[in-house]
Amino acid sequence: MNDEKLVVEIVCVGTEILLGNIVNTNAAYLSEKIAGLGLSCYYQTVVGDNPNRVEDAITTAINRSDIVILSGGLGPTQDDLTKEIAAKVCGKELILHEESLKDIEDFFKKKGINYTDNNVKQAMVPVDSIVLKNNNGTAPGIIIPYENKHVVLLPGPPNELKPMFEESVVPYFHKLTNCVITSQTVKVVSVGESLAETMIMDLIDNQTNPTIATYAKTGEVHIRVTASADSEEKARKLIKPVVKELKVRFGNNIYSTDENVTLEKSVVDLLAASDLKIMTVESCTGGMLASRLVNVPGASEVLKCGLVTYSNKAKRKLAGVKKTTIQKYTAVSAQTAREMAKGTDLGPKSDVIVSITGYAGPDSSEEEPAGLVYIACNVCGNITVKEFHFKGNRMKVRESATVNALVLVRQCILEYISQMTFGEKTE
Amino acid sequence: MNDEKLVVEIVCVGTEILLGNIVNTNAAYLSEKIAGLGLSCYYQTVVGDNPNRVEDAITTAINRSDIVILSGGLGPTQDDLTKEIAAKVCGKELILHEESLKDIEDFFKKKGINYTDNNVKQAMVPVDSIVLKNNNGTAPGIIIPYENKHVVLLPGPPNELKPMFEESVVPYFHKLTNCVITSQTVKVVSVGESLAETMIMDLIDNQTNPTIATYAKTGEVHIRVTASADSEEKARKLIKPVVKELKVRFGNNIYSTDENVTLEKSVVDLLAASDLKIMTVESCTGGMLASRLVNVPGASEVLKCGLVTYSNKAKRKLAGVKKTTIQKYTAVSAQTAREMAKGTDLGPKSDVIVSITGYAGPDSSEEEPAGLVYIACNVCGNITVKEFHFKGNRMKVRESATVNALVLVRQCILEYISQMTFGEKTE
Repeated sequence: MNDEKLVVEIVCVGTEILLGNIVNTNAAYLSEKIAGLGLSCYYQTVVGDNPNRVEDAITTAINRSDIVILSGGLGPTQDDLTKEIAAKVCGKELILHEESLKDIEDFFKKKGINYTDNNVKQAMVPVDSIVLKNNNGTAPGIIIPYENKHVVLLPGPPNELKPMFEESVVPYFHKLTNCVITSQTVKVVSVGESLAETMIMDLIDNQTNPTIATYAKTGEVHIRVTASADSEEKARKLIKPVVKELKVRFGNNIYSTDENVTLEKSVVDLLAASDLKIMTVESCTGGMLASRLVNVPGASEVLKCGLVTYSNKAKRKLAGVKKTTIQKYTAVSAQTAREMAKGTDLGPKSDVIVSITGYAGPDSSEEEPAGLVYIACNVCGNITVKEFHFKGNRMKVRESATVNALVLVRQCILEYISQMTFGEKTE
Repeated sequence: MNDEKLVVEIVCVGTEILLGNIVNTNAAYLSEKIAGLGLSCYYQTVVGDNPNRVEDAITTAINRSDIVILSGGLGPTQDDLTKEIAAKVCGKELILHEESLKDIEDFFKKKGINYTDNNVKQAMVPVDSIVLKNNNGTAPGIIIPYENKHVVLLPGPPNELKPMFEESVVPYFHKLTNCVITSQTVKVVSVGESLAETMIMDLIDNQTNPTIATYAKTGEVHIRVTASADSEEKARKLIKPVVKELKVRFGNNIYSTDENVTLEKSVVDLLAASDLKIMTVESCTGGMLASRLVNVPGASEVLKCGLVTYSNKAKRKLAGVKKTTIQKYTAVSAQTAREMAKGTDLGPKSDVIVSITGYAGPDSSEEEPAGLVYIACNVCGNITVKEFHFKGNRMKVRESATVNALVLVRQCILEYISQMTFGEKTE
């Protein structure tokens, strides 16, 4: 097991990134994964489809890093030259990889697309390299061991790069470091990043293995616990007590300890497990909350309908808010939010109703301050209303409102369940 | 006016980018702007908050480029070292810039935040540099002329970087190149990128000044026309006939020639100009369409309400779809989409009703193929229904459905207006 962290450099090849045509999400994905594996990344470089500059970038990266990850430029066209140049820099010839050629032919057959000769180019690999199967496209990935370094070539499309990294590159890195580095993410809501850090400062200060790092997301904090050991099992054993301690400190504010569970998925799962149906009644978010829930596969089990009551008339006619309530308290008030969450006879019956009303901006005045949002949640007749003051532009305010509505729904259901469990009266 | 394009390199400083904590949208923004200004960008580099590596990155960039744009690391903390190192590389001392210090003090006063001494650091600038006012934060931007090169320092937060680039850096580049480079973007829908390219291949092939480039976006193609001249007026004059020719070729498929107008804004504007109110009835998109419309400031003038009818019961009870229609044709059918768009008496009256129903995936079967989506649009009683087969994951299918619903609404309203204008019968 190496004590010194291996240094990784990411080189993304593609003129479309240099033209600003696409945002470099591959670099962000790879960087996060590399950090999660306990490796260091000092540089990300982007270079266009130009032979000399690609060669310069690869040479520079090999000189200053232990591992170079290249993405993009593995396709069948003349512009795709990453592999050819990487092989040249490493002094390796290209040879035909029969298995990859067969995979490519099969891929085209399955898709019913005509196979063209220039696809042979994609099956050429440097001698003595490791070929990584591409289950989502044609270009195989390649790892070229070079002196005591490693050049990893991955396809550019994220839907090919990500699974290939998980399936083939992570195990390779595990072998390389002669140790397994595993991490678990504890996902926290209702606590800001600085408070979260303060709450675990003693754990962070004393960290060696596992290490602990916090990541701020909109309305969430992710705490990543990373351990290294000579087996997956031992690494997990090291992580376990730390996650247990985090659970003690953050309690119900942890919505998941699973990398793949989003906040909206945790809410959908909680609703499904509690056999509760939810309905959304949105003003300033305008459907954003319903849309986030619907993006969870299986949401149809728990979300039957939603209302976008953007105008006062819609709030009255669809959500049943009283005219006098809006007149007396305005449309952005705790009272209006509460009535929006009371439920309506119009649609299918719901057990949980969540409502959002607020000023999203961009204009702000004393009477209508941008960022003021009320969110109400009704769980089987118990209504909770909360007032928020969000910062940022119109989109940011609406995103914050959406996240906090998910958090409130989660809290209210958990409280409801705990009251049920302990046999308290709920009315 | 220089014939050779100046070469720009982008260096983003921030450990949070190397950890994958944030996606590098600044690099994409700057790259697109640089291309729009007719300059070349050969490299983007990201480096962490480490003095030696920042110095290396700046030195390398200066050696191979005419202009180096650095973003991030201008703040008041010890970690913020971009300016200090850039000054060192250029051999310049830092001196206090009184005006910036006053601006910073004023900024804190206005926000009601206590001013702390470490903010003086932000008002220190290299001698003989050009100071760029920051109207949205505290750290001023800086341009250091160095030999015959230019080092541009911009703050990291996008809401500070972007306006500063537009207000101060663009005019500086104009002076530098001794010419004004201006571009206009023609935004096209209903035409794919390759077809769009084919339709203007003759224009692209013959391009010198202005140049023409296409950018593919989800459901859209942006065609950027860029001209250089010794005055803004002359550059605009060069662009004008090309945009005119593009209008002839793409006609109504152009929704805007304004950089700042999004597709949803063009729809909101068209509705407002036609004095039409819109209502959304969404199944698989689950509020995404309403949410996109609501993100346009002023959407409340045209969008009164929306329905998320995710379950069959909601489609019946809220949108008034007949039980027999769903039984006979299923919930994902042209017939159901049509009935969803017929309108309901429940909410406020709307002139335009747009409905979406489809299979978003991830699971796909012969009976329920993921990506099959029906979109219907009702303009004052005239209903158009379209069938789509979208590719990609659940989110991608829903995004494509949302964009195409906006496109269909736009088309239907334009047809309606043209029928009104030409006095045709609309029934």
